[in-house]
Amino acid sequence: MLTVPRTICLGFLAVITVGTLLLWLPWSTSNGQWNPFVIALFTATSAVCVTGHIIVDTPTHFSTFGHLIILLLIQVGGLGYMTATTFLIILLGRKFNLRQKIAVQQALDRRGIQGARQLVRSILGLAFLFEITGTLLLWFIFRQDYGDLRGLWLAVFHSISAWNNAGFSLFSDSLMSYQTSVPLNFVISALIIFGGIGYEVIFEFYLWLTDCLRHWGRPRYLVRKARQMTFSLNFKIVTSTTGVLLILGTVMLLLTEFRSPEAFGQFSLDQKLLLAWFQSVTARTAGFNTVDIGSFRNSGLFIMIALMFIGGSPGGTAGGIKTTTFRILAGITKSTLQGKDVVLLYRRQVPPTLIMKAVAVTVGSMFTVLISTTLIAIADPEINFINILFETVSAFATVGLSTGITSGLTVFSKFVLVVTMFAGRVGILLLMAAIMGDPRPSNIQYPEENLLVG
Amino acid sequence: MLTVPRTICLGFLAVITVGTLLLWLPWSTSNGQWNPFVIALFTATSAVCVTGHIIVDTPTHFSTFGHLIILLLIQVGGLGYMTATTFLIILLGRKFNLRQKIAVQQALDRRGIQGARQLVRSILGLAFLFEITGTLLLWFIFRQDYGDLRGLWLAVFHSISAWNNAGFSLFSDSLMSYQTSVPLNFVISALIIFGGIGYEVIFEFYLWLTDCLRHWGRPRYLVRKARQMTFSLNFKIVTSTTGVLLILGTVMLLLTEFRSPEAFGQFSLDQKLLLAWFQSVTARTAGFNTVDIGSFRNSGLFIMIALMFIGGSPGGTAGGIKTTTFRILAGITKSTLQGKDVVLLYRRQVPPTLIMKAVAVTVGSMFTVLISTTLIAIADPEINFINILFETVSAFATVGLSTGITSGLTVFSKFVLVVTMFAGRVGILLLMAAIMGDPRPSNIQYPEENLLVG
Ligand SMILES: [K+]
Ligand SMILES: [K+]
Repeated sequence: MLTVPRTICLGFLAVITVGTLLLWLPWSTSNGQWNPFVIALFTATSAVCVTGHIIVDTPTHFSTFGHLIILLLIQVGGLGYMTATTFLIILLGRKFNLRQKIAVQQALDRRGIQGARQLVRSILGLAFLFEITGTLLLWFIFRQDYGDLRGLWLAVFHSISAWNNAGFSLFSDSLMSYQTSVPLNFVISALIIFGGIGYEVIFEFYLWLTDCLRHWGRPRYLVRKARQMTFSLNFKIVTSTTGVLLILGTVMLLLTEFRSPEAFGQFSLDQKLLLAWFQSVTARTAGFNTVDIGSFRNSGLFIMIALMFIGGSPGGTAGGIKTTTFRILAGITKSTLQGKDVVLLYRRQVPPTLIMKAVAVTVGSMFTVLISTTLIAIADPEINFINILFETVSAFATVGLSTGITSGLTVFSKFVLVVTMFAGRVGILLLMAAIMGDPRPSNIQYPEENLLVG
Repeated sequence: MLTVPRTICLGFLAVITVGTLLLWLPWSTSNGQWNPFVIALFTATSAVCVTGHIIVDTPTHFSTFGHLIILLLIQVGGLGYMTATTFLIILLGRKFNLRQKIAVQQALDRRGIQGARQLVRSILGLAFLFEITGTLLLWFIFRQDYGDLRGLWLAVFHSISAWNNAGFSLFSDSLMSYQTSVPLNFVISALIIFGGIGYEVIFEFYLWLTDCLRHWGRPRYLVRKARQMTFSLNFKIVTSTTGVLLILGTVMLLLTEFRSPEAFGQFSLDQKLLLAWFQSVTARTAGFNTVDIGSFRNSGLFIMIALMFIGGSPGGTAGGIKTTTFRILAGITKSTLQGKDVVLLYRRQVPPTLIMKAVAVTVGSMFTVLISTTLIAIADPEINFINILFETVSAFATVGLSTGITSGLTVFSKFVLVVTMFAGRVGILLLMAAIMGDPRPSNIQYPEENLLVG
């Protein structure tokens, strides 16, 4: 039966299939020959899942037509299946029925569909607004080095890739040649952070801002307004967790790589700060890098792995278990230590079903990473373990950063990465639900029984 | 204020301090000189926490007096603070008051104290019964190679070390010289498994067995009895999970190390099976090894890390997050996938507070492993990452297995391991509660609010 999760997974697979076929064509490669199937499949999956893992050099291997296909796949994958499915329904002129609403709601876990048509328009509008602004700002940087036309194309590509947290680059060394450019670091960081923070947070901030601006002439009202700020729990958790993780990541990477001769060693203090900041931002599942990740020490790589696994925020273009899941897990631990039996976050109680979902997401994610790490470790026994773990977490959290082992992996390991990227993007719970089908409802009540734990 | 968790932690620290002082003495070393402080502290902590991590060769570095001290520390640490504290109270002739009862109950997470004196007697009786049986059986093996007296001492030491899942050995190569001896593998495996499965499970099985034996002459009654078996949820989960993990571990290690030239390569098929089985058993936090763990491939080490992290069962001498915690996490994931809002295990509902506790134990454990891995990776940057991860998980889950890096670590990293062993043995929740003190009770009710997750 074509259940809702199955429809979503199949839709995703359909886009990947079309992308693979297009990238397979001789027009997509720079040498005009048919692309090997593994390369086409891997690149298409990586683009649709906005991961950014690559096994060939994007700028030299693909033609401009190939680059355009990759960019389109990123845009379709990044705007998400939610907008895609909703858009499709609007195009077909059909009204939403309840079942479809639930499907869309499940897909991106939104709290409700209030006017699907309007929401899709807002999301598309937001994406294009940021992407166009990003393009303009990047154009001023790239045109100095590459001229007007080539600079514009580079600006378009990197703006879309950054907003969608895709990590694909038209430079062979990602953004390493701009590692000390403050303007580029600023623009790309902003695109990554806003793209990965979720539409809802931006909408909520926008509504608050316009409300403030409307009463700009009345300072007293503004102060009262500021005191009454009623941001949602989602807003508070996402912004605070993102902020803390960004700063913590910067400080930790600065600590571990400060004297590392290959990573930050030869730079000045403020350059080190910029490098640590950007690498902390990119671990929010973006996947660009301004320093060779392969030159990081074990401790730096391990910190990156932890940051990538947590990932970005829900409702955006980011992957990972998400900041909200992380905070709920931390909240459970804190409550248990305090002997409370409810989980509180910002004076709001977290519903029990949400606790279960957070645990399920984390367990499922860890299980996926565990399986794919073991499989790749078996297939490629000579590769350093932390590089494999970095690779699988990066693929699962749709980050796309790599220590440089991807292209040298066996074909089997590459397929494992393809499946991992897919599972990470559609979400392990949705994927499992798609495989298992709709559960039969059961109303049998069973008695409670205690257990020894821990 | 001396809260209950603090009392328990301090009691543990007191035993470690006494052990450190005793092992410091010149009588404890084989060369008759004062032991370096780091070695005394590390060995005492490792023995009291029944971990088995070593930084010097136990048989050659310590004198027989030193070996006796280590054995006593293992016995005190292994029988647990629960029996120790209870025993202390009995010795002092005081009656249990409610507060002490709760302390003991919290310490080992027992479901209730029904006659503390009787329970302590049963636990001690059980331990000595298994240890004496183990000693006798091991004596038959060791006396052939080491004579009657030396063989007896070896049998006593390894029997107590195995039952308490301590992993200390009087052989420099652990049990590698007996790697193909079926009797030794059988005896040690049995001691490890029963020691790590928890007293309750053994008591429950014993009660069921005696009940069956009492009605041995009435086969009809026996069949009806067998059908009515009302084992506790704890019994069912512990036995089934232990069984599955033992078999799964054997199969997985057989797969990854089958052709590994250094690990299982040169052995026959049934010898490979025996080696895989023993290494799977020892990952239940025992810490003996019959093959060089350092020769394992990355995939084999990673499987061992997963097995060690799950660890043994509560109420026994084993460490790790425990089999029950693991099953509850799996149960939450399954329920979420089925769209249920309660967690069912064997047709019994798991109470919400237990779900929270399982999550807290896991998050706390992962956090501890993450911190100590990062610290050691910073202090010893040249060591292979998987060896560090193996070391910290092994220390936290009180396993004591090592890829051979322990003695070469910096003093700082050794201290990190000491703290990790301690945190792993007293339990991260209890330790945090001891540090934070009693929480102030709060009855304020906060409204629920939904969140985006995963
Ligand atoms: K990415
Ligand atoms: K042990």
